[in-house]
Amino acid sequence: MPSASATPDATPAYQALTATFLRLHHLEHLQSIAYWDQATHMPAGAAEARAAALAEVAGLQHRLRTDPALADQIARATQEPLDDDQRANLREISREWRAANALPEALVQRRALATARCEHAWRTQRPANDWAGFLANFREVVAVAREEAQRLSAQGGLAPYDALIDRFEPGMTCAQLDPLFADLRQWLPGLIQQAQAHQQRSAATLQPLRGPFPLEAQRALCQQVMGLLQFDFQRGRLDTSTHPFAGGVPEDVRLTNRYDLDDVLNGVLGAIHETGHGRYEQNRPRALLGQPVSLARSMGLHESQSLAFEMQLGRHPGFVALLTPLLAQAFGPQPAFEPENLRRLLTRVQPGLIRVDADEVSYAPHVMLRYEIERALIEDDLAPDDIPALWDQRMAELLGQDSRGDFRNGPMQDVHWPEAMFGYFPSYTLGAMYAAQWFAAMRRELPALDDQIAAGELTPLFDWLSRHIWQAGSRWETDALTRRISGEPLNPAHYRAHLEARYLGSA
Amino acid sequence: MPSASATPDATPAYQALTATFLRLHHLEHLQSIAYWDQATHMPAGAAEARAAALAEVAGLQHRLRTDPALADQIARATQEPLDDDQRANLREISREWRAANALPEALVQRRALATARCEHAWRTQRPANDWAGFLANFREVVAVAREEAQRLSAQGGLAPYDALIDRFEPGMTCAQLDPLFADLRQWLPGLIQQAQAHQQRSAATLQPLRGPFPLEAQRALCQQVMGLLQFDFQRGRLDTSTHPFAGGVPEDVRLTNRYDLDDVLNGVLGAIHETGHGRYEQNRPRALLGQPVSLARSMGLHESQSLAFEMQLGRHPGFVALLTPLLAQAFGPQPAFEPENLRRLLTRVQPGLIRVDADEVSYAPHVMLRYEIERALIEDDLAPDDIPALWDQRMAELLGQDSRGDFRNGPMQDVHWPEAMFGYFPSYTLGAMYAAQWFAAMRRELPALDDQIAAGELTPLFDWLSRHIWQAGSRWETDALTRRISGEPLNPAHYRAHLEARYLGSA
Repeated sequence: MPSASATPDATPAYQALTATFLRLHHLEHLQSIAYWDQATHMPAGAAEARAAALAEVAGLQHRLRTDPALADQIARATQEPLDDDQRANLREISREWRAANALPEALVQRRALATARCEHAWRTQRPANDWAGFLANFREVVAVAREEAQRLSAQGGLAPYDALIDRFEPGMTCAQLDPLFADLRQWLPGLIQQAQAHQQRSAATLQPLRGPFPLEAQRALCQQVMGLLQFDFQRGRLDTSTHPFAGGVPEDVRLTNRYDLDDVLNGVLGAIHETGHGRYEQNRPRALLGQPVSLARSMGLHESQSLAFEMQLGRHPGFVALLTPLLAQAFGPQPAFEPENLRRLLTRVQPGLIRVDADEVSYAPHVMLRYEIERALIEDDLAPDDIPALWDQRMAELLGQDSRGDFRNGPMQDVHWPEAMFGYFPSYTLGAMYAAQWFAAMRRELPALDDQIAAGELTPLFDWLSRHIWQAGSRWETDALTRRISGEPLNPAHYRAHLEARYLGSA
Repeated sequence: MPSASATPDATPAYQALTATFLRLHHLEHLQSIAYWDQATHMPAGAAEARAAALAEVAGLQHRLRTDPALADQIARATQEPLDDDQRANLREISREWRAANALPEALVQRRALATARCEHAWRTQRPANDWAGFLANFREVVAVAREEAQRLSAQGGLAPYDALIDRFEPGMTCAQLDPLFADLRQWLPGLIQQAQAHQQRSAATLQPLRGPFPLEAQRALCQQVMGLLQFDFQRGRLDTSTHPFAGGVPEDVRLTNRYDLDDVLNGVLGAIHETGHGRYEQNRPRALLGQPVSLARSMGLHESQSLAFEMQLGRHPGFVALLTPLLAQAFGPQPAFEPENLRRLLTRVQPGLIRVDADEVSYAPHVMLRYEIERALIEDDLAPDDIPALWDQRMAELLGQDSRGDFRNGPMQDVHWPEAMFGYFPSYTLGAMYAAQWFAAMRRELPALDDQIAAGELTPLFDWLSRHIWQAGSRWETDALTRRISGEPLNPAHYRAHLEARYLGSA
């Protein structure tokens, strides 16, 4: 850590802080490998022992983060001669320290208990469509989340739901999100209908995938695609799990994926998405690893990378054409794999009930209805019992779907609420907006970008992302970083322009 | 922990100790999964970050084990009203505490540095047969080990090399080992020659294995064999690594194996061996897990289980016949798989230079020569530079092998010395002797044992091992446990009788 170790004599308090956060980094390494193992390899009978081991390390981390000595070290470090990176690191250290100290131990334990119980039961209640059973646990989750929001609000001065968003998206508030979503609401339902009508006109010529696609060949294909995306397999792996995720540590990124025997594109897109997360992690500023300033800026920024990969690049006509020979090599040629047909398969608009299955265009409405509902929940304007009525109403308005009585594919479909991750959902749509904004900026700086993508020359694109985003870590706060990257604040016009060009264009 | 939590009010010091060791157990869980991952899945580029993370947890463990508060808690617990299990646990806690405190931090660090450097270089020096390069690092390893032995000796009152043995085999000393090995030396070289002559007479009819044996089918076969051996896959796994090992934790035992494309029996025996270790770990006293009293009694006892599985059971004619249909199902029938032929393949005596490739009869001489050399090294009677001469001399005497100039397959063949694991080797031969003694005792108590094995009824055998050994943990010290199990102290006559019956019998 050149930056962290500069002028140690003059910065003893700062040095003490970096040593603590390096220790936390080491503990997070073991923790993240244990989580990965739990999702990919751990036998079922080990769950209880694993939970106890992970609770032990969580307790150690909490004690390190709330060590009373940190308050004094932070205060003294503020007076020390720090350079810009160090000052940014101190800002992020302070944020972590405030967050760790905001909640009393008893509330943290009550929250852990409530979410563990709700999430564990949800795994069987969801397939059984058991909303009443779910509610019995979920009411306590909401009660805990309300108290958490109140306490974070009292400590940091944000409104309660804003304080929850701030955990994932520092600096973001409802005051900024409301106009973004209000704007989407004006034009997105119409765009969904127009795109569907547009595609309907040529539906007869669309060649469907002809499976089955053997799973081992799918996995090998995904590794090839990850290679094309320059994932560093010397510092990472691809494995299989029920729910895909990007885990591990920057020095050892563990991506997981799942495969559908009949739909090879599902697995390929999953791998591309996680590779976006993975490359961000692999390319965070190496000299600062372990320090909070090296962390990804926000979950919205993180999703902007997975969506830059999955949506902006992964459905780009030039990139799609690169997949054709790989698919043909893996499974033999078939009409569905032809570039233009493949592109059409990858950009079909088909609203449905399930967020994680949504296409690029109809994804945002899933986020908008959750944002509205969870904000009302936290602000005590909505009782948990009344979620389904509002869900059904918004589902019909925004996506034309009838969700009545289908709790499993309605408010019970996501793990976020059982886990009390209120405030996370907006990051998905922010990520999609940021990704469109990055590509617009990139096209200004790299006029040959689209031709390069079509030629398989992806290095300029990745270098741009690395220089502007991955290597930035958390040196700048989100708004400043957004301006540095693109010359303007978050501007949803790029997202709209991207969707209109892709879905209402001539294709 | 029923035993550990009994009468908490009357045993506050004891309770405090058990809480500390439960915390250590949780840290060991994460540590052991990280070690397993490192050997099976970790990409090469993550080595440095993993080493730092493991060093962090090792430091935490050391601080917990050397917490000054423990001395007082141990002293006070001695006066508390403890039951037998608790008293045995306190004895084992005291042993761990003494071991952790015996060595100054500086020596521990010097040792870690010397062994890491020597072992790392050894990985390339061994294939290059570079004895001079190895010596350059190994001299420091020996110097550190001598100081370690001196300090352990000064603290515990044992002779220096005995103090090193005691780390792996509590209570075992050279005074007990010398007559055991002197006895072996009298009759074992002759037995090796007789067994070879005996087998030579029927060599013409022996059907060799006809491979190749696809690796994935070998792995699946090994899982079947582990199922036959009642390994609990709900609390464990089988994976692949360069060097087989039994890792993980009792609640999640991680076995690894390696496969030889041309020799399926190599992989099967490896899996059987590790399953012996694995079942011991899976069946340690569950209510006491986390407490030192639940640990396997010694490395000799541990090897007695792997060898009870691999040697006593795995080469038993009745068990071998159970493998025939499994092999034929996996690879199609061939003459080599016929029960009698398979038994002969599994019991061929063929002395060689490599310990880990040795057959059951010629294994012990490999241990005997290492015991002699490392004892002389630690007692300062032999310089590291003089190892090869003594090695060559003993190799010729004990096994009739010419090892001159072949350092790679001579004193550089094992990882134990680069890692300063002096005192470990005797445990292998003790394990073989104990295993023979257990089977002799078992046959007295279970007269139908051999018929049951032939009928695939292995439960009585495993129940016996579980009741007498696995469930005992460290409740009794080794000699007391040996007498409880078999009615007599360690008696090498059972080992000799077993080898003579199997290798000079009528087969």
